[in-house]
Amino acid sequence: MMQTFWSTMAKRATPYVPGEQLNDQNVLKLNTNENPYPPSPSVIQAIRDAANVDLRRYPSPDLEQLREIIGKTYDLTKDQVFIGNGSDEVLAFSFMAFFEPGKTIRFPEITYSFYPVYAQLFDIPYETIPMKADFTLDIERFYHSEGGVIFPNPNAPTSIAIGIDDIRKILEHNPTRIVIVDEAYVDFSTQSAVSLINKYPNLLIVQTTSKSRSLAGLRVGYALGNEGLIQALIRIKNSINSYTLDRLAIAGAIASFQDWKSTKENINKIIQTRTWVSEKMRDYGFFVLPSETNFIFVTHPDFSAKQLYKLLKQRHVLVRYFNQPPINQYLRISIGTDKEMEQFFNCLSEVMASCHSLS
Amino acid sequence: MMQTFWSTMAKRATPYVPGEQLNDQNVLKLNTNENPYPPSPSVIQAIRDAANVDLRRYPSPDLEQLREIIGKTYDLTKDQVFIGNGSDEVLAFSFMAFFEPGKTIRFPEITYSFYPVYAQLFDIPYETIPMKADFTLDIERFYHSEGGVIFPNPNAPTSIAIGIDDIRKILEHNPTRIVIVDEAYVDFSTQSAVSLINKYPNLLIVQTTSKSRSLAGLRVGYALGNEGLIQALIRIKNSINSYTLDRLAIAGAIASFQDWKSTKENINKIIQTRTWVSEKMRDYGFFVLPSETNFIFVTHPDFSAKQLYKLLKQRHVLVRYFNQPPINQYLRISIGTDKEMEQFFNCLSEVMASCHSLS
Repeated sequence: MMQTFWSTMAKRATPYVPGEQLNDQNVLKLNTNENPYPPSPSVIQAIRDAANVDLRRYPSPDLEQLREIIGKTYDLTKDQVFIGNGSDEVLAFSFMAFFEPGKTIRFPEITYSFYPVYAQLFDIPYETIPMKADFTLDIERFYHSEGGVIFPNPNAPTSIAIGIDDIRKILEHNPTRIVIVDEAYVDFSTQSAVSLINKYPNLLIVQTTSKSRSLAGLRVGYALGNEGLIQALIRIKNSINSYTLDRLAIAGAIASFQDWKSTKENINKIIQTRTWVSEKMRDYGFFVLPSETNFIFVTHPDFSAKQLYKLLKQRHVLVRYFNQPPINQYLRISIGTDKEMEQFFNCLSEVMASCHSLS
Repeated sequence: MMQTFWSTMAKRATPYVPGEQLNDQNVLKLNTNENPYPPSPSVIQAIRDAANVDLRRYPSPDLEQLREIIGKTYDLTKDQVFIGNGSDEVLAFSFMAFFEPGKTIRFPEITYSFYPVYAQLFDIPYETIPMKADFTLDIERFYHSEGGVIFPNPNAPTSIAIGIDDIRKILEHNPTRIVIVDEAYVDFSTQSAVSLINKYPNLLIVQTTSKSRSLAGLRVGYALGNEGLIQALIRIKNSINSYTLDRLAIAGAIASFQDWKSTKENINKIIQTRTWVSEKMRDYGFFVLPSETNFIFVTHPDFSAKQLYKLLKQRHVLVRYFNQPPINQYLRISIGTDKEMEQFFNCLSEVMASCHSLS
């Protein structure tokens, strides 16, 4: 009855389930990799200034000014920049623009769980490539793909990155296929492939303002690549929605790209916190993958990850647990402020003590 | 070269071209049906209040609060409300959720020019139904459609509406197919089909905050329909982008739905202006369709619409001209304030005088 009028596509869809969004202020929210620090004050001011009578007017459909400033940030032209309503929308449009029903694409077995959702929706066959034993990408197995390649770098939820040389190899072994590198977390790493864009016309890089720029609530993501790829994305966008960014998101994003300094300070703080948190987790007996993101991915030989997740949640600490092999013994924990992470360790100690008493 | 890596879908796409957005403050912009009055002060205040440190956090993925308040506005439950990033996105998702490649849908020959764009992108065959001589919908030709029906009511760019009884007939003659009524302009009319939702499970109504609520710059549209239809739209949305509305759009839209009074005052002013503008256009010798929208659709027996459009533009007055039969002798003119429309008539007089001198 419910599905009476659904299209084949609606029936086929297997929607993504985002991390829980609790509004309870008493919850320590370490489950969606949000930045614990606020965005630049200039961003907030720019948005307040844009909240004016001009809201009656449509925003810019082509986002020239924002594309210009993002381009400059990466030594690219505005014609090498596409902007969307969050990097998820940019990824969805990329699946539509570059991948093809009937041609199998490849992505890592452990990766951002939105990729199979897009593939399923647009009927694009995919092959998942098992990780190496250390959870790094098995580079050579991404060579000579039939339909294209997509992977995050650093990868999520594993938190680890591959180097530019490995990305170059994947690009060179897929000369007629698109390779999408999803750099959502790259500002916490040193391995951006942006410098390869002018050399490899098959490279599309996707980034976001949600993580390093503390703007998850503003919904601004972007793709960087050669002009032909950007044109394809613009065609898809203009066949769906002429104006994907509202006037406030445009104003806020412009201000954010004008103030790298405050973003960089927050990144540095998060990396410092990540360092001591990783060490302390190891002291607690966890195996911690070497993170180049604003989260860590951990497992413990003596404790059930699912149980730890549940017991932490009972104590109002939310981390992300993926109930699927081969990562169902892992937890993904976002890096908060030093104070939040101390609070986290207090809870974790209690939880581990109570688990021991159970065993 | 440019298209090297494009998918079949990207190649097939024939993007929509929105009305020109000039930032020149000296231009009298009557080309995109924007509301000449500002949004409610409470909307601006709500957005300024939401421009705070919480921007670091993701917005609500399910938009419960906004769905609740929109539902209440129309005597519906939140489960009968879907919200998207502007009504264009809602329409695109509706094409994905309810229409099907291989099954021909129908829409009017003269209508919102985004419909063929969606159909082309998603490979949905369509048949355009010629208008009756008076530009109204030829109701019976929408009966027994193979793949579904979509039309705006009031229609755009014609500005005229059909009555609820005619919509009921179309619904009853398409019991197994979705009928989408695009009510973008309905607040300037008296013919909303919302009261039919609980009776017809095949009815989906799409509305927007861009026109009557003066929020084109905020990008908030919505669909109203039975729960099964809303679920299909949610599945599509959650397969593309978990968070399509940013925190500011959510806050602004909630405030707008809490203040119908200020919206209603603006609607009344626009309807008053529309009345005298229509009369005066007739005095100028134009044929003016009986508008139930915030624009008028006009033609003149003695003047080329294209030439009028060009000459008005030279004088910094922008109206919308569609260079395609059978409407290439018409102009679509948005209703501005009384003062703006007086300015418009001053220019129009000059332009018509200069045209006469040419003939």
